[in-house]
Amino acid sequence: MNLWFTEYYENDTALSIKIKKTLYSGKSKYQKIDVLESEQLGKILLLDDLIMLTEAHEFAYHEMIAHVPLFSHPEPKSVLIIGGGDGGTAREVLRHENIEKCVMCEIDDMVVKVTKEYIPSVGSQFDNPKLELLFKDGVKFIEENTNKFDIIIIDSTDPVGFAEGLFKQKFYQSVYDCLKEDGIMVAQAENPYYYADIQKDMFNNLKAVFPIVSMYLSFIPFYPSGMWAFAFASKKYKPLEKVKYDDIKKMENELKYFNSDIIKSCFSLPNFAKKVL
Amino acid sequence: MNLWFTEYYENDTALSIKIKKTLYSGKSKYQKIDVLESEQLGKILLLDDLIMLTEAHEFAYHEMIAHVPLFSHPEPKSVLIIGGGDGGTAREVLRHENIEKCVMCEIDDMVVKVTKEYIPSVGSQFDNPKLELLFKDGVKFIEENTNKFDIIIIDSTDPVGFAEGLFKQKFYQSVYDCLKEDGIMVAQAENPYYYADIQKDMFNNLKAVFPIVSMYLSFIPFYPSGMWAFAFASKKYKPLEKVKYDDIKKMENELKYFNSDIIKSCFSLPNFAKKVL
Amino acid sequence: MNLWFTEYYENDTALSIKIKKTLYSGKSKYQKIDVLESEQLGKILLLDDLIMLTEAHEFAYHEMIAHVPLFSHPEPKSVLIIGGGDGGTAREVLRHENIEKCVMCEIDDMVVKVTKEYIPSVGSQFDNPKLELLFKDGVKFIEENTNKFDIIIIDSTDPVGFAEGLFKQKFYQSVYDCLKEDGIMVAQAENPYYYADIQKDMFNNLKAVFPIVSMYLSFIPFYPSGMWAFAFASKKYKPLEKVKYDDIKKMENELKYFNSDIIKSCFSLPNFAKKVL
Amino acid sequence: MNLWFTEYYENDTALSIKIKKTLYSGKSKYQKIDVLESEQLGKILLLDDLIMLTEAHEFAYHEMIAHVPLFSHPEPKSVLIIGGGDGGTAREVLRHENIEKCVMCEIDDMVVKVTKEYIPSVGSQFDNPKLELLFKDGVKFIEENTNKFDIIIIDSTDPVGFAEGLFKQKFYQSVYDCLKEDGIMVAQAENPYYYADIQKDMFNNLKAVFPIVSMYLSFIPFYPSGMWAFAFASKKYKPLEKVKYDDIKKMENELKYFNSDIIKSCFSLPNFAKKVL
Repeated sequence: MNLWFTEYYENDTALSIKIKKTLYSGKSKYQKIDVLESEQLGKILLLDDLIMLTEAHEFAYHEMIAHVPLFSHPEPKSVLIIGGGDGGTAREVLRHENIEKCVMCEIDDMVVKVTKEYIPSVGSQFDNPKLELLFKDGVKFIEENTNKFDIIIIDSTDPVGFAEGLFKQKFYQSVYDCLKEDGIMVAQAENPYYYADIQKDMFNNLKAVFPIVSMYLSFIPFYPSGMWAFAFASKKYKPLEKVKYDDIKKMENELKYFNSDIIKSCFSLPNFAKKVL
Repeated sequence: MNLWFTEYYENDTALSIKIKKTLYSGKSKYQKIDVLESEQLGKILLLDDLIMLTEAHEFAYHEMIAHVPLFSHPEPKSVLIIGGGDGGTAREVLRHENIEKCVMCEIDDMVVKVTKEYIPSVGSQFDNPKLELLFKDGVKFIEENTNKFDIIIIDSTDPVGFAEGLFKQKFYQSVYDCLKEDGIMVAQAENPYYYADIQKDMFNNLKAVFPIVSMYLSFIPFYPSGMWAFAFASKKYKPLEKVKYDDIKKMENELKYFNSDIIKSCFSLPNFAKKVL
Repeated sequence: MNLWFTEYYENDTALSIKIKKTLYSGKSKYQKIDVLESEQLGKILLLDDLIMLTEAHEFAYHEMIAHVPLFSHPEPKSVLIIGGGDGGTAREVLRHENIEKCVMCEIDDMVVKVTKEYIPSVGSQFDNPKLELLFKDGVKFIEENTNKFDIIIIDSTDPVGFAEGLFKQKFYQSVYDCLKEDGIMVAQAENPYYYADIQKDMFNNLKAVFPIVSMYLSFIPFYPSGMWAFAFASKKYKPLEKVKYDDIKKMENELKYFNSDIIKSCFSLPNFAKKVL
Repeated sequence: MNLWFTEYYENDTALSIKIKKTLYSGKSKYQKIDVLESEQLGKILLLDDLIMLTEAHEFAYHEMIAHVPLFSHPEPKSVLIIGGGDGGTAREVLRHENIEKCVMCEIDDMVVKVTKEYIPSVGSQFDNPKLELLFKDGVKFIEENTNKFDIIIIDSTDPVGFAEGLFKQKFYQSVYDCLKEDGIMVAQAENPYYYADIQKDMFNNLKAVFPIVSMYLSFIPFYPSGMWAFAFASKKYKPLEKVKYDDIKKMENELKYFNSDIIKSCFSLPNFAKKVL
């Protein structure tokens, strides 16, 4: 059946994926949520009509947003995820046996419900006893929170609408305050091919707060341009400074993307991307 | 004007680019050739309806196919390009002042004529006195050729139709024979997300001939998945073994993608891509 | 959600309809069957990826294929429908109280099951006691059948694959033999804008068998070009010769398309369409 | 080349046409103007991204907007066209040898220039000595004009932007005043499948001014739904009252759509279209 979902990008390009079936369509208090079944890429999650993940390739996003900060920290025990409603980031965080507590603060409980039911391969760890699920606004939560975390991961949608606050200096200051003295923050950070301006704002805001700020990259075919960036901001440790490669080796067999070579290379940026920093 | 060019990929995805103007459409002895002007990505070259390049982002392909082998060789003086009709690879090769001779063997003279006229930013070096342009079948040329080169770059279309021979073991043997004893070959090598099977054949063929075979990657938004691979095959030098980083530093200002960090990191492969090798 | 079904027509045009939901997808012994829910045109039935009907506008097809022959006959009592699996033609035939028996011979029982369940507004009369449903090949049925009908309606898919036989002279001869001496046959007949050649064959075949052959037209937005033709073939009565306009008046209130003016005008053909006959 | 122009309609459907070449793109004081060459339908004229005509099928529009009023009047000598910048309506009007004067008042001279140069098969009569071309706002011209015409044809774009005034009661009053006492006005009138509301306003405005108001239809595949309407408004003659069928016969050989049967049938409306009036 000649049925295609199309996402139009801001620079007059578009990605289309052939669809076999619509599985779910709903509207939460915050956004539209759709789950589609594609012909060749498994299930697809859309939030407000933008592709969040395809089942076939989501590993390239979730492994990279989780394992880079977790392996950059010498002994992470507590993780806070802001956003991450589909559960993929939590799934990767919870592969780390040293993690004692993973708090996930997602504003929209419907995203969790929907992925749990319709994309269980991603939303697989919602019942893990180490995971504490909170349905709250991440900006408010982090302002009021008094616990300190080793790692904070900002797994948000794009900086429009209700997620806008998650890209501002004020928010990054609160993140800083919630991190232990050697804590690390990572955030999804758009792409330098199409959205360099958004990135510049974001990294300037981070640099106003954190002493160490870097960008790293992953090949993600379902996001605009196929190149996706993450912001790495740290109070104490530089990227690669504390990596225990033996620990990576132990986990590598389970993973489809991340490995020792990747953590060493992902902070290398093409010239046009360096200009963002 | 709501006018879009769409390229359908084999895995039921498609990339569309908004078009402002058609600049040229013709048919050579070998293939259809079209030049389009896009709304935001500059001119686009199509061969047999597949996007070869967009002016906005072709640097990510041409810099990576040229500078990785050239900087991996301690003192390259002679380069052979098989294919490369749009001129972008020659343009990058000829940035290297130590290159004394660059032979380019392109089967289709119309590609050269068309890019020279319609996309001069890419086809800029066709009149460079160091460039020797031959309009011949690369497979035949390399079988009959008796000169030896430091570097051979296979800048071909996909392994269908007349370019199919450029992915076979017999051809790689001829390439081997045309390389000096410390020569390096690089070839465009499709992508591991969608075409792992094609890659496996290609790398098996290379490994049957060359002692050193590697894969490296570039972020190229106008190719399927946005992740593009190159095959690196060498008689003597391993990747990174002979890189003179000072020379890279001197050229970096002119470049948009390639730099010292990139050459060090581009051979790092995600787990799913490693399986190809 | 930016989800569109597209039907490509043979003359390099295409119609797209925005889809809200997929309701059913299956494969019978004969064809693919899909039911979609569109954003603004109600449900859509696809057979082998071609739009058979949209709920919003199917009246323009079903009223015209049924009421033109039924009101052209002075006293129709028995009707045979070949095809018509979605039930829309039967629904219109059974509006005529003088009809005592409507036999419907559909090759594919899954089409009936699917429309009955998913598009009940069209498949509404399958349980009408005047309707006799047979799941047989129309070509064979009509060859073996010994009853005679007042009206035979060929409500088939396009003349490719298993429906091809329904457009041949041999089949029309069998139809002729199954009609009473004053019987009338009507068949869906493609469109003269795009498929004049198919139409020429079809009408030549009809004229080889029937003394009276005409074409009439309807505005149907979900078929190629929006102009759709029906073949009218008759043993005795010319179009309009026996129309009882009072009877039409009585039914008009229930109908969305057909009326006294329409039956008088629908046989009028533009010059380019006349050439087909 | 997989290059398609798509026009999205208001009811979430879209028509796409495969394009071979862009011939012209410009912006006048009033609108964007584009000429495309399609694969199978000849040249296409776009105004503000909407398809005005395809060369293959424009006859269905131009013959019907011109010959219906001209053959409805017993002896038309003077015609005023408001709009009609592509020249197709003038071409059809000037087939009538009894016409002594055809004034064409088009607001946008660039439409005339562009069609004359790029689509000469349509813009073929701009140099006809019987044609007086004025580049003025039709609303103003008709308010100030003191001549009286037998026929006025409103060949405008849709009732948005600068053409909006051409659908208002005030304008129709001016048209009335510019017609001789037995004059006839015809205007393009959108389609009853998708735009019944726009039509209701338009026909109410006409009925407030003219004693005789009708709608007639044509099959036009490049307009939304494929069904297109024209408004017929007359001071004295009803449709068909004064038609000289012998004169039609004389012209029929030159025409692709219009003929004696068509003028008799085109005022017949399906039930859903009658509701507009």
